[in-house]
This record gives sequence, C-alpha cells and structure tokens, in this order.
Amino acid sequence: MFSQPDNICFEIPDWVNEYCSNYQASPELNKRVAFVITASRMNVEEGSGGPFAAAIFEKGTGELVSLGVNLVEAQRSSMLHAEMVAIAVAQARLATYDLGSASAAGYELVTSTEPCTMCLGGVLWSGVNKVVAAARDEDARAIGFDEGPKPDDWIKSLNDRGIEVLDDVERDSARSVLQMYKESKGHIYNSRKR
Amino acid sequence: MFSQPDNICFEIPDWVNEYCSNYQASPELNKRVAFVITASRMNVEEGSGGPFAAAIFEKGTGELVSLGVNLVEAQRSSMLHAEMVAIAVAQARLATYDLGSASAAGYELVTSTEPCTMCLGGVLWSGVNKVVAAARDEDARAIGFDEGPKPDDWIKSLNDRGIEVLDDVERDSARSVLQMYKESKGHIYNSRKR
Repeated sequence: MFSQPDNICFEIPDWVNEYCSNYQASPELNKRVAFVITASRMNVEEGSGGPFAAAIFEKGTGELVSLGVNLVEAQRSSMLHAEMVAIAVAQARLATYDLGSASAAGYELVTSTEPCTMCLGGVLWSGVNKVVAAARDEDARAIGFDEGPKPDDWIKSLNDRGIEVLDDVERDSARSVLQMYKESKGHIYNSRKR
Repeated sequence: MFSQPDNICFEIPDWVNEYCSNYQASPELNKRVAFVITASRMNVEEGSGGPFAAAIFEKGTGELVSLGVNLVEAQRSSMLHAEMVAIAVAQARLATYDLGSASAAGYELVTSTEPCTMCLGGVLWSGVNKVVAAARDEDARAIGFDEGPKPDDWIKSLNDRGIEVLDDVERDSARSVLQMYKESKGHIYNSRKR
C-alpha cells in the first residue's frame, strides 16, 4: 500500500549554529554581507554543500534572525538553496509565514549570490522587505550553475512589491568563493542542464 | 546568545496519506489530474490550506510517488506551495535531490494550477521531466493570488531543459475549486501585494 512520510525534516549543520553564536549585530551593511560570504566559504570547507549562503537580519538593529546555507546535496532536496533555508528558519523562529507581519521595521535578506528563479519567488512570498546581493547570477553561471529563467527586470518585480534591492555589495569577495569552488572541482549539481 | 533550530520539520496532514492509500495507478492522464484536483478541494474542506495540490507520478506506470498540498498557513512557511511539498516528499522517499536520476522512465508532476515563479524554479531543479497543469496562472490571479514575475515563455524555459509541458488539462474542474475557495471567503495570503 502507498505510504508517504508523515513529515519532512531538514537538518541544519552544527557548524552553522556555532558560527552564528559568534555574530555581533552590526549596523554596518558590509559587515553583515561579509558574515554571509564567510558562511558561503565555510559551507564548502565544511563539506556541507555548495558555495552559497544567505541570512535574514532585523532591519535597524542588524540582529541576526537566521542563517541558511545550500543543503541540496547534504539533505537530498533540490529546494534547499541558501535563501530558502534562511527563510524557512526565520519563519520557524518567528512562527509566521509572513515576516512582514512580524516586525514594524521589517527584515533584510542578505545573499552571497543573487537569487535564482526559485529563490526570487521564495523571497517574494517570504515577507522580507529588503534584499542585498553580493555576487551576480552571471558569476554563478560562469562556474556552471543554472540560475533559471529570471525576468530581466527581476529587481523591478521586487521593487513593485515594496522590496528594496541592493546589488553588487562585496561582489568580488563573493565571486572569489565561487571561483574557489570551481577550482576545487566542487560538484555542479543542476538537475536539468540546458 | 543566538540560537536557531537544529532542524526544520513540516508535517503532512493525516488525510493526505489516507487519501493517497486509495489511489489506483492509472495510465489515463485525466484520472491522475482528477486525483490531484480532488486533493486541492479536500485541502480547503479539511481546513489544511489553500486550494492547491500537486502530485508526482512515475511515468509509464502512473504509480503515485508523492502528493503535496498547500501548507503555507498550516505550517507557517511561505515556501510550502503544493508543488514544493510534492517535490520534497518525492525526493525524501527516493532519497535523491534529482528525480531525473532515480528512474529511466522519469517522473511527471501534475499540478492543479500552473506553477508560480517560485515553483517554476522548484520544478526546474527537481529533476521531473514532465509537467501537467490544470488551471492557469490567470485563474489563480482572478481570485487574488499573486503568481509573481514569470517569464511569458515559461513553458519554453521548461522545454529548453528537457521538460515536457501539458497545459489546460481539466482546467474547468480545477478552476471551480479556486472559485469555491473565493466564494467561501478563503484567506488570500500573499505576503507582498502588488
């Protein structure tokens, strides 16, 4: 007889929570971005996934709400891109599917690489009201990852829904992690190649 | 000190597995689609979420691999659209992030409504090689759901990656569930409204 699981669970690697415990809230954007880029590098070094990380911070205070890293291979689930993990953890911590309703100041998602098609949609539905990206799509594509069919005006599509976007923040630093992954012959795990 | 959860878990409602246990594998596409549309209606009637369902079937045999329903409100997670749940359950059952590697015949995702932006990307990364949709985006938009900035040529973007798409299969039946949801004053839970 057909039987599917009663629940779906994903484990967050231990090093993620250890790394988060050392985070000092900062009003300086570049420090928050550097915190995320370091996590993207650690995810490769720790062997827990691809070279991507994302975090959600409380606007104004810079307090950390969640840190997500790419867990696609480790957790055998193609939806576990860093942004999706960060959003899922933040929503679990704050017990709401709409982060926009959880704080008047709102929440900022910082990602080491611009969101792919899936994560673009994921960000839209999450309730964050600011997105900060370091490396660009094209930097991920340059090492072989497929980012999917994103509209050219994806930033406008976020702006139109009240979400501010800052791009190219510490891009060189994030790109160097992608390059390191390529040079270390990290697995490029697109399920469907164009 | 900062502490985030060690894991993220989502529960599948009991009725989903009970309903699945009565599924008879069928080579007839319309029967598989009707099975999914009935689940979208049941999700509303059972009070477990929005009027959306999706399932993954083994191609050729029509065997059911997973059934997902919209669990955004029930599980307080904006990523839990029906397609994402179906993909996550299928990947957990088959223990792979790439359904394309799990069977030579491949897998078909049947969804009661065309995928939104997030689910379009989610489908691309899942490894399914066929998508069947009943209601259209515009039918979901007509009752107030935001489907996000999907490219006009989204079907081509799937085709280009080797994924076959059949649209408008049993559209009227699926649309009647969306209408029922609207008339019952079901909650339209977009986090960000345009």
